Amino acid sequence: MDQEQLKGLLEQVRSGSVDIDVAMERMRHLPFEDLGFAKVDHHRALRHGMPEVIFGKGKTPHQVVEVAKALASRASNLLVTRATQEIADAMMAAFPEAESFPASGAIRLWRDRTSRGRGKIAVVCAGTSDLPVAEEAQITCEVMGNEVDTIHDIGVAGIHRLMSNRLRLSEAKAIVVCAGMEGALPSAVGGLVSCPVIAVPTSIGYGASFNGLAALLGMLNSCASNVSVVNIDNGFGAGYVASLINRG
Amino acid sequence: MDQEQLKGLLEQVRSGSVDIDVAMERMRHLPFEDLGFAKVDHHRALRHGMPEVIFGKGKTPHQVVEVAKALASRASNLLVTRATQEIADAMMAAFPEAESFPASGAIRLWRDRTSRGRGKIAVVCAGTSDLPVAEEAQITCEVMGNEVDTIHDIGVAGIHRLMSNRLRLSEAKAIVVCAGMEGALPSAVGGLVSCPVIAVPTSIGYGASFNGLAALLGMLNSCASNVSVVNIDNGFGAGYVASLINRG
Amino acid sequence: MDQEQLKGLLEQVRSGSVDIDVAMERMRHLPFEDLGFAKVDHHRALRHGMPEVIFGKGKTPHQVVEVAKALASRASNLLVTRATQEIADAMMAAFPEAESFPASGAIRLWRDRTSRGRGKIAVVCAGTSDLPVAEEAQITCEVMGNEVDTIHDIGVAGIHRLMSNRLRLSEAKAIVVCAGMEGALPSAVGGLVSCPVIAVPTSIGYGASFNGLAALLGMLNSCASNVSVVNIDNGFGAGYVASLINRG
Amino acid sequence: MDQEQLKGLLEQVRSGSVDIDVAMERMRHLPFEDLGFAKVDHHRALRHGMPEVIFGKGKTPHQVVEVAKALASRASNLLVTRATQEIADAMMAAFPEAESFPASGAIRLWRDRTSRGRGKIAVVCAGTSDLPVAEEAQITCEVMGNEVDTIHDIGVAGIHRLMSNRLRLSEAKAIVVCAGMEGALPSAVGGLVSCPVIAVPTSIGYGASFNGLAALLGMLNSCASNVSVVNIDNGFGAGYVASLINRG
Amino acid sequence: MDQEQLKGLLEQVRSGSVDIDVAMERMRHLPFEDLGFAKVDHHRALRHGMPEVIFGKGKTPHQVVEVAKALASRASNLLVTRATQEIADAMMAAFPEAESFPASGAIRLWRDRTSRGRGKIAVVCAGTSDLPVAEEAQITCEVMGNEVDTIHDIGVAGIHRLMSNRLRLSEAKAIVVCAGMEGALPSAVGGLVSCPVIAVPTSIGYGASFNGLAALLGMLNSCASNVSVVNIDNGFGAGYVASLINRG
Amino acid sequence: MDQEQLKGLLEQVRSGSVDIDVAMERMRHLPFEDLGFAKVDHHRALRHGMPEVIFGKGKTPHQVVEVAKALASRASNLLVTRATQEIADAMMAAFPEAESFPASGAIRLWRDRTSRGRGKIAVVCAGTSDLPVAEEAQITCEVMGNEVDTIHDIGVAGIHRLMSNRLRLSEAKAIVVCAGMEGALPSAVGGLVSCPVIAVPTSIGYGASFNGLAALLGMLNSCASNVSVVNIDNGFGAGYVASLINRG
Amino acid sequence: MDQEQLKGLLEQVRSGSVDIDVAMERMRHLPFEDLGFAKVDHHRALRHGMPEVIFGKGKTPHQVVEVAKALASRASNLLVTRATQEIADAMMAAFPEAESFPASGAIRLWRDRTSRGRGKIAVVCAGTSDLPVAEEAQITCEVMGNEVDTIHDIGVAGIHRLMSNRLRLSEAKAIVVCAGMEGALPSAVGGLVSCPVIAVPTSIGYGASFNGLAALLGMLNSCASNVSVVNIDNGFGAGYVASLINRG
Amino acid sequence: MDQEQLKGLLEQVRSGSVDIDVAMERMRHLPFEDLGFAKVDHHRALRHGMPEVIFGKGKTPHQVVEVAKALASRASNLLVTRATQEIADAMMAAFPEAESFPASGAIRLWRDRTSRGRGKIAVVCAGTSDLPVAEEAQITCEVMGNEVDTIHDIGVAGIHRLMSNRLRLSEAKAIVVCAGMEGALPSAVGGLVSCPVIAVPTSIGYGASFNGLAALLGMLNSCASNVSVVNIDNGFGAGYVASLINRG
Repeated sequence: MDQEQLKGLLEQVRSGSVDIDVAMERMRHLPFEDLGFAKVDHHRALRHGMPEVIFGKGKTPHQVVEVAKALASRASNLLVTRATQEIADAMMAAFPEAESFPASGAIRLWRDRTSRGRGKIAVVCAGTSDLPVAEEAQITCEVMGNEVDTIHDIGVAGIHRLMSNRLRLSEAKAIVVCAGMEGALPSAVGGLVSCPVIAVPTSIGYGASFNGLAALLGMLNSCASNVSVVNIDNGFGAGYVASLINRG
Repeated sequence: MDQEQLKGLLEQVRSGSVDIDVAMERMRHLPFEDLGFAKVDHHRALRHGMPEVIFGKGKTPHQVVEVAKALASRASNLLVTRATQEIADAMMAAFPEAESFPASGAIRLWRDRTSRGRGKIAVVCAGTSDLPVAEEAQITCEVMGNEVDTIHDIGVAGIHRLMSNRLRLSEAKAIVVCAGMEGALPSAVGGLVSCPVIAVPTSIGYGASFNGLAALLGMLNSCASNVSVVNIDNGFGAGYVASLINRG
Repeated sequence: MDQEQLKGLLEQVRSGSVDIDVAMERMRHLPFEDLGFAKVDHHRALRHGMPEVIFGKGKTPHQVVEVAKALASRASNLLVTRATQEIADAMMAAFPEAESFPASGAIRLWRDRTSRGRGKIAVVCAGTSDLPVAEEAQITCEVMGNEVDTIHDIGVAGIHRLMSNRLRLSEAKAIVVCAGMEGALPSAVGGLVSCPVIAVPTSIGYGASFNGLAALLGMLNSCASNVSVVNIDNGFGAGYVASLINRG
Repeated sequence: MDQEQLKGLLEQVRSGSVDIDVAMERMRHLPFEDLGFAKVDHHRALRHGMPEVIFGKGKTPHQVVEVAKALASRASNLLVTRATQEIADAMMAAFPEAESFPASGAIRLWRDRTSRGRGKIAVVCAGTSDLPVAEEAQITCEVMGNEVDTIHDIGVAGIHRLMSNRLRLSEAKAIVVCAGMEGALPSAVGGLVSCPVIAVPTSIGYGASFNGLAALLGMLNSCASNVSVVNIDNGFGAGYVASLINRG
Repeated sequence: MDQEQLKGLLEQVRSGSVDIDVAMERMRHLPFEDLGFAKVDHHRALRHGMPEVIFGKGKTPHQVVEVAKALASRASNLLVTRATQEIADAMMAAFPEAESFPASGAIRLWRDRTSRGRGKIAVVCAGTSDLPVAEEAQITCEVMGNEVDTIHDIGVAGIHRLMSNRLRLSEAKAIVVCAGMEGALPSAVGGLVSCPVIAVPTSIGYGASFNGLAALLGMLNSCASNVSVVNIDNGFGAGYVASLINRG
Repeated sequence: MDQEQLKGLLEQVRSGSVDIDVAMERMRHLPFEDLGFAKVDHHRALRHGMPEVIFGKGKTPHQVVEVAKALASRASNLLVTRATQEIADAMMAAFPEAESFPASGAIRLWRDRTSRGRGKIAVVCAGTSDLPVAEEAQITCEVMGNEVDTIHDIGVAGIHRLMSNRLRLSEAKAIVVCAGMEGALPSAVGGLVSCPVIAVPTSIGYGASFNGLAALLGMLNSCASNVSVVNIDNGFGAGYVASLINRG
Repeated sequence: MDQEQLKGLLEQVRSGSVDIDVAMERMRHLPFEDLGFAKVDHHRALRHGMPEVIFGKGKTPHQVVEVAKALASRASNLLVTRATQEIADAMMAAFPEAESFPASGAIRLWRDRTSRGRGKIAVVCAGTSDLPVAEEAQITCEVMGNEVDTIHDIGVAGIHRLMSNRLRLSEAKAIVVCAGMEGALPSAVGGLVSCPVIAVPTSIGYGASFNGLAALLGMLNSCASNVSVVNIDNGFGAGYVASLINRG
Repeated sequence: MDQEQLKGLLEQVRSGSVDIDVAMERMRHLPFEDLGFAKVDHHRALRHGMPEVIFGKGKTPHQVVEVAKALASRASNLLVTRATQEIADAMMAAFPEAESFPASGAIRLWRDRTSRGRGKIAVVCAGTSDLPVAEEAQITCEVMGNEVDTIHDIGVAGIHRLMSNRLRLSEAKAIVVCAGMEGALPSAVGGLVSCPVIAVPTSIGYGASFNGLAALLGMLNSCASNVSVVNIDNGFGAGYVASLINRG
């Protein structure tokens, strides 16, 4: 039963062909999204400027392309994350205007480049090995309409580099910090700025890093109060949250 | 060497009594916060409307009161978290105008009640047992100048209650969601709104909840992209991040 | 000593050629399944309508086919789980009437399609990545004589889709819910229905999902009382339990 | 807006004082449980014969008694779990007809003792230390209208006792098995019967039992296909699921 | 049906009043331990010289004494482990000839002191903090009829003490080694002797010892091939296994 | 300084050319194994009937063969464990009389087949997937001079098979039990026999088996007192310990 | 057999009353520490300036005092760690010249205050809650003859304080850094200095700090190469290692 | 703003063209490393004799060679760790004078072979499988100007070999001990010497070694006070710390 059906029912109420009590009983069993609730999602998509994201992992190139075609017909921008090279090839064939980012496995269809943020987002990473995760965050922020300032290779053990970027950091409305190993960078950055910091533990490291667990725990225990955390290697999620913050 | 010393040095430069190269050498070895960097913290405090927070756990009532007196002399608002009853008694004796919140162990000195947010913050909790954590978040948001809408006892297993609060949730600029056990509520809330959701796992539960670990992992793996996470039972941190987001 | 031997012994008792005390002593040392207990298994198999299941993992194609031939000679239906492509090829060559399901690695010999359940079983999954596990559950339910209603791609973060399937869910006698990541779907489903929900954590996810651990812990801590849990990715076990429940 | 409001709206539709399109728009924004969905819960409660359960842990005696009074006014049976002695005393004072079970901390108001199951539920425990958890399961099953057969102190290391109860076990429609330490009993029971087995790991043990984790993992890895698992020490949940299964 | 019943059945077979097939059918459904299998346990008890052990943890003094009285009437020796002071007091009142060992919480009734071993058992501990666990192992070995050589306070970091006890160690038929912290002693002892070494991790330590987990993992990974391991703090189990080995 | 040097020193003492105090000083600094302690190892090897074992994992075929040649020149029997196919090929080329066991990766040079045990060792496994680990245990027991009774595919969920092998089990002097998944078999076997049981958790399973951790924890928490445990998949260690026990 | 016995044996060799071969055989079986090796420990103690340390945890006041008296008779300095108040009282009664440090539970008998280091040791802590652990490290360093520079309350989130202590840090020969929560301070310190940094994770924190595990993992994954780690809360061990480094 | 800019500013101060207050304000916002702080790093490099290390893991051969060329132009010695064979080939082509160590994946450019240590460093490993990690430590020590004494294959289970190397060990200024499995060797070594011991857990082992976790925990819980620990397999870090210690 959709909007038409509801309309029909109400018309029957008006005409008297259906009793009010019967109408109420029928309405109680309606699948409610058919009453128009589903439009919420549609509106939100438009408001976000980023209708859909496809998580590429575990999907075939054919599946990704088909979904992408459907989505791209009604949305300006599209992001595929965690794509294999095969998926990237298929996507680039189907969408020649798309961009492919092999380091992070992202593919981006960026047709609406309207800027929607109140300021800049900084995307920071601790080491060169954290770059793919930072790239995913950066691409996400951009496709969601944000200007991004990327600052790479600032480790806690080389605190001078961090300090020398203090001003750039303090100009951001939100900061994404990607770090593996001990995951200490978000605390240090958080202590220097007054905006929200979204920490992304990366799986970079070996031994007792336990694939990012050490960094994750470190970030959750941050002594800086403006730090919140997303899943290990989840550059997309961090960029998404930062974009919402920057949009205000 | 403080500001006065730097001023003196520069005056010596101007008067010619100290060589420029010598001045540069001396400046390189200055403890740099004495150059005024420390003011940054001060400024930030004023800008935040919440200069200092005292983490009460592991401190004696005397220690807390002494620190509180020092801080309260130069800041309008003060928050003590994780205070024992003894600390609360000592604080209430020293600051008769303070408020004490026994459930969460918070004590608040809320002299400057200026509203600083762009909108409301919603603080949501899944069960009545999560209330102390939610209270800590609420108190933090308020003392940082935000209007708070609290929505209690909305579990994922009773999804009707969640749905019936959909409109209130969608009006918030940031939402703090506190949940123990399976920690599923942030995902469900996150899917209904388009603002950032800060998830707080609580240590509520037993057995395989492992003191909040289950909820923490659930929240980190949220399928809603607008969710970031703070430490278990860290209502303060969530309220702090939400306040920064709402301030914009 | 088998049934014949026991019969012989009793005949000796009757004829008096063996003393009663001696007979009792001998019987105490009998391997008891030879007394006919083994028939219990046989009876149960017939009663179940699914005599044997072969866990394909770690077996060679030859081993699987040989075991399958032996079992198929005395049972109508046969299920191979976790089969490699090599096993599937060998099985399809040996049993042309069998069905092969590459996504889940299941192979099914479904000769007796008698319906044995009191109602329908719903098999629900949270995301498309959970489909292989859901498929294993569905195939198991069917081969055990149940009608299955499959509902795919209902995440907690998109609660409208869940709500719109409320009626279908409430018609099931038992529901299998497969979910990875935060594993919140069983709680949400459990809160909507009054039948038993069997939750299957899947290994879908990355980072802090720890190969399904996050989902597993979430499901064990479900705030819905009608949820019980099976091992990670154990679609077969969930389908098996649901089938027993539906049979009554 | 409640049922009355909806009725009023429909009457306005009928009378023509409200346009159909306007009515549809208004209905879309209704908090939908006010449309009567909440009755579902009420109906389910009646159908179950157990309207409400109060989780006593973390609540004050006053809170529990107040909630209990409200619930007892509209439901026949009431169960409080994890109650302290103080809660038990307050409940027994308020409800003289209630039963108190100190071992498990359960309190039961069992006014409607109608039998609702298709058969018996067996509640089995491995050692005497597991009795409190088994008691919680038993009380739950009974208050939900089931006949319960309790079989205590059957360990895997004393397999003769298990075998001698084989017939009693095979007569049950569902079996709750509580075991700590290695948690092997559900597998052994599961292999002997053809009904669903709900396994409850208990926190009994020491050292590498890790408060029930060893038993939990053992049960999740059961080689018997008819076993599903609930949280550590969750006798209530197991009894609840078993009751739903027995009701059919 | 017990032995008498089986005898009656066989007599009916002999007399012809029961058919052989009917007898076979009845026998198949006998609870088999009633056929005399239970005697096995009784025999084993006599053969072991230690009929029963009572795990005191979680039992009331009254419960322990009652069980102890029943057991002591048919067995010479009795061991209670993990007894509280209250249990110990009650036991000593009921059994004046018993011994109480407060460090380990053991109580021993040692009436039959026959030596049953082929040689000596050595019980070794790494530090004085491990003594309670070693005491439990020693008491167990003794009450099972073994001569015990106790060697205390031999740490891996003071390897000279270990070396100076080399000869005593090499004379044992089995060695119990109790160690906390890094749990390295069993490997070192194992490399010096050719008899089986039973390693007992103790919960002694702090921080990253994780209540004995570090020692447990260390012992499981021992590079000495003659080491097997029991649960953390399980001195009783180690003494039991060592006794079986020494008995041969 | 070796035996010759010590002899020379003592001769100098006898001849008076070296002072007794000086001799004592020199002796204190001797690397003591040069005094002949190293012979202990040699003696032990002879006494064991199994001079050397080569852990093949991580070694090149060349390395294994070279070490094997050196060892085989002074010992009758040789065991290589965890050998790759390449190592096996090289070993079989170098030692045509050796046996290769691809399932477990063992290679055996079994020239001295003297029986050294007091009785038989039983090697039991729960499922066919546990066979490689059981094979390693069996080969180890045999090459150390023991008669082995292998009993395969006895799961706890099929307790009849276990019971029907009760007599064979009770005849063993030591039993190795290999089981994955829930690891319950050692407890069940331990309850049926009075000899030591060495439990080997195997890495068989999936999901929450965590590569054998579930089985390991289950075995460490065994409620049977005669069970001790070795590392996951360590069939060799279990066979080694069982051999020492059987030798007495 | 002690030194006297060896001397006697050598005299018999000289006199010819014992054969050289016989003497060699006897010497091989000597418990070797009786040959004087034990003196090594004695020498080391003197060389260290700290003969003995008593780990107070789990010992009675009487035990600690007795051991302390024995040790204090032959060593100048004595350190008791992890002492309860009862132990401290007993120690202060027995050794009026001792110092008691209630925060860390240390008691120190510091009679020989000779400075033995090549420079200073810095002991740094991140927060005031880490002070007890830092105190234990400081006391250890001092009693081992080192000058200590203590720098408190330098968190990574307040990096200005760290930077302002850069010069003091760079003057140390070894630095002990105590930090809880995310444990990031050792990395930051390590990056500023070129001496070895000994990191001590503390159990300070809550929730996902898991009693110091988060800090421990962070420190083990430090991106500064000059950091090594000791156990959680092990201030003594860190002070001990730093002292050895400073002594050179 | 760099040194030149600062100089310019001071000259403006001297000339009076810039006000002192304005100068102070400008200086406060300077990126401070431009004031010369960065030289610290440069100085430290020269002082260490090892200017740069390249962590090869995750880098392409091209990246490594480019960075190496830049670094080698201003530093004498260079170390690449965790290099793949492809990186090694590219490096050897670019730097014919370099050394390649395939076992550990290290590549070394060792032009300045000045000895800088006060004594020797011992690098010890427990088994042949630990050799790659020991090699990384050895190479690091050497390239940092230390003489290294390598002692291989000393296991705790073969304590005679350890004892026979006692004197060599006692001559070292610092000892790196690499061990997998139970990780007991550092404790045993630590007890024999009075210098600092840096323990390196290796990932050698299987099953419950959990890729080095067992060894790591063992080493953190060492009962020898002179042991500190680095990350699993971190031979480089251990060698680095040992070098700093030896340099004094």
